[in-house]
Amino acid sequence: MRFRWKGRIIFFATGNINKFNEARKVLAELDLAVAMIKVKALEIQSSSLNEIATASVEDAFSKCNLPIIVEDAGLFIDALNGFPGPYAAYVYKTIGNAGLLRLLRSERNREASFRSVIAYKSAEAEAPKLFSGDSHGIIVREERRGDGRSGFGFDPVFKPDESDKTFAEMGIEEKNLYSHRARALRSFAEWYRGL
Amino acid sequence: MRFRWKGRIIFFATGNINKFNEARKVLAELDLAVAMIKVKALEIQSSSLNEIATASVEDAFSKCNLPIIVEDAGLFIDALNGFPGPYAAYVYKTIGNAGLLRLLRSERNREASFRSVIAYKSAEAEAPKLFSGDSHGIIVREERRGDGRSGFGFDPVFKPDESDKTFAEMGIEEKNLYSHRARALRSFAEWYRGL
Repeated sequence: MRFRWKGRIIFFATGNINKFNEARKVLAELDLAVAMIKVKALEIQSSSLNEIATASVEDAFSKCNLPIIVEDAGLFIDALNGFPGPYAAYVYKTIGNAGLLRLLRSERNREASFRSVIAYKSAEAEAPKLFSGDSHGIIVREERRGDGRSGFGFDPVFKPDESDKTFAEMGIEEKNLYSHRARALRSFAEWYRGL
Repeated sequence: MRFRWKGRIIFFATGNINKFNEARKVLAELDLAVAMIKVKALEIQSSSLNEIATASVEDAFSKCNLPIIVEDAGLFIDALNGFPGPYAAYVYKTIGNAGLLRLLRSERNREASFRSVIAYKSAEAEAPKLFSGDSHGIIVREERRGDGRSGFGFDPVFKPDESDKTFAEMGIEEKNLYSHRARALRSFAEWYRGL
C-alpha cells in the first residue's frame, strides 16, 4: 500500500485528542499534514523526557513502520523538586489541579516549566531524532479557565511568562504562541521540511 | 561458569539495599539464599504493578540469564484516587512524606494500601510468574520514626492495620510480619521451594 499525498505527511502516535489538535494547527502553519495514529507505545519510567520519548518512538515505529512522531511532556515545579515531572498525566488523573495547589498553598516560589520532547523515527533514520520546547511560567493560586472549552491537564493553573492568561484561558492558536509543545513541534517541522 | 551451591539461590535485581535486606531475611526463614544483582531493569509507566514487574523481569533476565526476581511496589491512597500508586519512588524523591501529609491534611479518610508484586523468570520458565502481597493500613497524621535506622520511603507515615506502629517504628523482622513485600516474597518462596 502506498500513500498518495503531494505534500509531506507525518504520523503522530498519541491517544490524546487535545495534543493532536494542537499539533495539527502548528504543523499546518508549516505546510505539514499530520495524522493521528493510535499505536500503544511503550512508556518507560525515567526522570528524563528524552529517554522516555526515545524508547517510545522506537516502540511505536516497530509497530507501524511509518514515519512517526511521539511526544512526551512534563511539568517541573521548582519548589517541589521538579514534581510532577514526567508523571504529570498520572498525577493529574489522581490528585489533579486541586492537589497541586494544595501542595503549593503556603509556597511563595511559584516558578515552573512545561517541557515537551518530540521524537521522530522513520525507516531512513537510524536513530530517533529529538526536538524539545519549553514554556517557563508560574503556578497561579487558583484554577483559571476561560470558556471552559480550552486547555487540558494542568493548563488551568499554569500561566506562561509571556501572558497574563493561563493556558486554559487561551484558545489553541494563542496557546500555540507560547506552549512548550508548539515550540518543540515547530523545531521538528523546520528540520523535517529541510529533509 | 557454574554456581556451586547446595541449597537454592535466587538473584534479586534491585538497586535498593533496604528492599534487599528485607528480602534476605524473609527468604532466609524459608531456607532460600538471595543475592543482590544490579542489572538496570526497564521500568515502564503503567498503573498496573503486574505489567511493570513483568516487563522489568523480562528485561532483567535478558541481560543476565540467571533465575531472577524483580519487585515493584506501590502505595495506593484511597482519598487521593490511588496516588502515588506505582510512582511512589519518584513522588517520595520530590514531595516526600511532607507532601503526602499536606495533600491529606484536612482529609478524614486515611485508608491506604501498600502492594508489592514479585516477578520471577528463569531459563526454564516460559512466561514470568507473578506473586503479590498487600498491606492495608492508614496514613498517620505526622511522620513517626523509631530509632531512625529503620524503614525507608513512605514507611514513617504508614501504619498497618495489625499494629500501632508505623513501618518505620519497626525493625526489619517486625515489619516483615505485616509488610506487602514480605507477603509477596513468602508467596514466591513457597512456590519456588516446591519447584
